[in-house]
Parts: sequence; structure tokens; C-alpha cells
Amino acid sequence: MISIVLFGAGNLATHLFKALLKAEKFKVVQVYNHKPESLEFFKDKTNITTNLEDVLPADVYLFSLKDDVISLLAKKLNYKKAFVLHTSGSTPLSVFSHFERFGVIYPLQTFSRNKDVDFKKVPICIEANNEVDMQILEQLALEITTRVYKISSEQRKALHVAAVFVSNFVNYLYTEGQEICNKNEIPFEILHPLILETATKIVDLNPKEAQTGPAKRNDQEVINSHLELLNMEQQKLYKLLTESIQNLHGKEL
Amino acid sequence: MISIVLFGAGNLATHLFKALLKAEKFKVVQVYNHKPESLEFFKDKTNITTNLEDVLPADVYLFSLKDDVISLLAKKLNYKKAFVLHTSGSTPLSVFSHFERFGVIYPLQTFSRNKDVDFKKVPICIEANNEVDMQILEQLALEITTRVYKISSEQRKALHVAAVFVSNFVNYLYTEGQEICNKNEIPFEILHPLILETATKIVDLNPKEAQTGPAKRNDQEVINSHLELLNMEQQKLYKLLTESIQNLHGKEL
Repeated sequence: MISIVLFGAGNLATHLFKALLKAEKFKVVQVYNHKPESLEFFKDKTNITTNLEDVLPADVYLFSLKDDVISLLAKKLNYKKAFVLHTSGSTPLSVFSHFERFGVIYPLQTFSRNKDVDFKKVPICIEANNEVDMQILEQLALEITTRVYKISSEQRKALHVAAVFVSNFVNYLYTEGQEICNKNEIPFEILHPLILETATKIVDLNPKEAQTGPAKRNDQEVINSHLELLNMEQQKLYKLLTESIQNLHGKEL
Repeated sequence: MISIVLFGAGNLATHLFKALLKAEKFKVVQVYNHKPESLEFFKDKTNITTNLEDVLPADVYLFSLKDDVISLLAKKLNYKKAFVLHTSGSTPLSVFSHFERFGVIYPLQTFSRNKDVDFKKVPICIEANNEVDMQILEQLALEITTRVYKISSEQRKALHVAAVFVSNFVNYLYTEGQEICNKNEIPFEILHPLILETATKIVDLNPKEAQTGPAKRNDQEVINSHLELLNMEQQKLYKLLTESIQNLHGKEL
């Protein structure tokens, strides 16, 4: 049995902890967080601590923390024999280069505290500084998901940027859509099937092929009438995205 | 049985035609399009014509055409007793005001020629210039879907703008995500679960609550490192969307 101390108690840490409850070869023996109130969920499930000096000896130290806190803690700590891991899309492997054994286990999914995620389908990107630990890491990842990818630090950084575009920025466009609906007393649920179909169709179709709408058709009359309905900030976004679509697709028609 | 002549042979017209093949009370008796090659699909299924003078008498004339073509044809034609409809999100009801009976039947979904859509779940927005025809229109819509909404011209216009944000613009962000993946030799499929989860979660959660990522966390270090990876056009989008998210959420931490 491989013992794990989990650093962090945020959305991702909580979801990882839950997924690892079912693991056979691995066990989270302690959760560390500097704020005691964040440890509430864990306190009857494993050992908890808010004090770095009380961190237990373990085989794996797993940092699921904000990027700057990972760097900060990595500098403070000095584990000799343990395997040290972080879960960040944007922190390079080299943040741990003063340790002997280190790696990254990055689940590529969006986690909200109040919505359960089926971890078995979440792609997990792994990287380690040596082949033996890469195998341990692969075993750990396979306890959590069926989709494991070996991804270098450089690729992971690019993947994280791509994820910001297809998830964080996309979600912001949903927020704008909802605001426009609210302002006009339209139930936002009318847009749900469109949102789901737009997401689903690019599993089969290349997104470039799937592009539709007034920007692609270069339908200037519709574009102008839309701009009239929008506030300044929405107009800026509408114009820039329309321009980008037209640059990609050429001014067809 | 209520007879329909369908004007147009594009993606939406084709999908509507297919959905109406199963209807009991309505029947498409003819499809008109000015380009004969676009009528290929319909020719062994119903009467077809490329000549406005050969259009058959019918109870309903259904225009599934580009917005400017709807206006153009509406001006040319002069149906006295028939019920005249269009399917456009951005053309007001008033384009038909010289007719006696007119309305709008606007399916809010994205249609690609090569991907079938389950019309039963597509929200359809309806509007008519009189109560009797509103009932016919509701019957027609219910032949196609289970989700029918009465939406005014003004609301429909706002809905169309919202749809551009949550579908056309979202799809463009998927395209950027794919480009970043291709450039870094990462399979785009790694992003599929994230894309689907981002879309699915706003059915339960308000998109404003669902927002995550470096912009919302105001993680300037990550934001800067992302910008370094992007080309000029991607940088413009990244900056504007980050700024918008920060304006909405305040510079939290």
C-alpha cells in the first residue's frame, strides 16, 4: 500500500480525495491545509493538519494547491525519499528539481465543489523525472481514470492555455448569453440544447467545419443589428470574435 | 391535412423537411430553391421547382432562407389566403406585414448538414399576427418538437444574439483550442471531456457560479505565461476575455 499526504483542500483536492477513497494500492493518510475551516470535509475521513511540522511520513506527497503556493511550499520542504507530485496545468516539473523523485499528475477537467464529476472519464496527464516513478504514477492515475496521457511540461502548458479557451472563456460566453436572456425576460433554458449540441458536435466534426452564424456568412446586416442590442463590453467581444471568425474563414459568399 | 411549400434547401430546410416527413396533419407538397443542384436531396421525395411561377397553391408557405432573401422574396410575392412563415432568428415578423396571415417558427439549434439532430428536443420559438394562426403554428411546432415557446420579435432578436455568443463564438474558441493542440502535437480529444463538462454543468449551475480559471483567480503569473505562448490574434482574444471575466467577478482572490 502506497501512502499519500494530500496538500490542499480545494475543489480539485476534494475530488481527488473522493476518487482515491476507492483505490486499492493507494491511501490518503493525511490532508494538510493552512486554513482549518477548509479541512472540515476531511476530518472524519482521514488524519488532518494545519501545521507543516506535523505532516506525516509518506510515500507520496501530492500538492493540489494554487501555483504560487506550490512553488512556495516546494522551496520550504525537503523530502528525501518520497515521490513529490503536483496537479497543476501551468507549473513546470522543474519546480521540484531540488527533490530526488518528482512528477506531475494533471487531471484535465473543470471541478466545481457542488457538482460531482465522473473521474473515470477525466483525462489525466502524467510526467515524472524517472522511468520507475513514471510507472508508479501511471498506476496512481489508472486508479482514478481510464484515460492516461504522457504529456511533457511544455505540452502541458500549451494544453492548459487551450483549456482556458475551450472552458473558462467558453463559460464566460455562456454568462453573457444568460445576461442577454435575463435582460429580455427569456428563460435561459431555451439555450441549453444549443449549448449542448455545439459542444457535442465537435466530438465528431472538426470545430472549423462546424462553424456557423452571421460572422461566418459575413451577414453584415445581422451583425449590425446585433451590435445595437449590446452594451459596450459585449460589443467589444462581439466585434473581436466576429473579426477572428472572418479572418479564419475568409469573407466567404 | 395542411399543405406546405418549403422555400429553401439549406441545412435548416433539409432538417425541417425530414422532421415533417413524420408529421400527420402537415405535408410538404413542394420545395422551391433557385439553384437546381441544391434540390437533389428532395427530388424523389416531393415536388421540386426552381421557378417562382411554378410554386403550387398551398395552405402554408414556409421560408427557410437567408435573411436578405426572405425580405427580397416577401416583397415579390403576394399570397392572399395562405399563412406565410419564416424560420429566421433575426428577421422581424413585420417583414410579412403586407400579407394577411403571417408568423415565425424559429428552431433554436445549430444545424450541420452531416450531423443529424433530434428535433424532438429542439426548442422552437413561435409568433403569429393573429390568435387563430398562432394555434395552427403551435400544432405545426408540436409535430416537430416537444419544446414550444411563444417569443415576441424583440425577444427573438435578443435570443439570436445570445445564441451567437453561446454557440458561434463558443465554437470559434474550440477552433482556437484545437489550433493550440495541433501546434504542440497534442491530440485534441484530450479536451473533449472538458468541453462536454463545461457545457453540461451550466444546466445545473448558473454560468457565473461555474466560472473557474486564472482570470477569475486573478493569477497574473499564469496569465502572463499563457500570453507568451499565443499568436497576436489569440493574445487579443485572451486579454479581452480575461479583462471581461475580471470586470464581472471583481479582482477576487
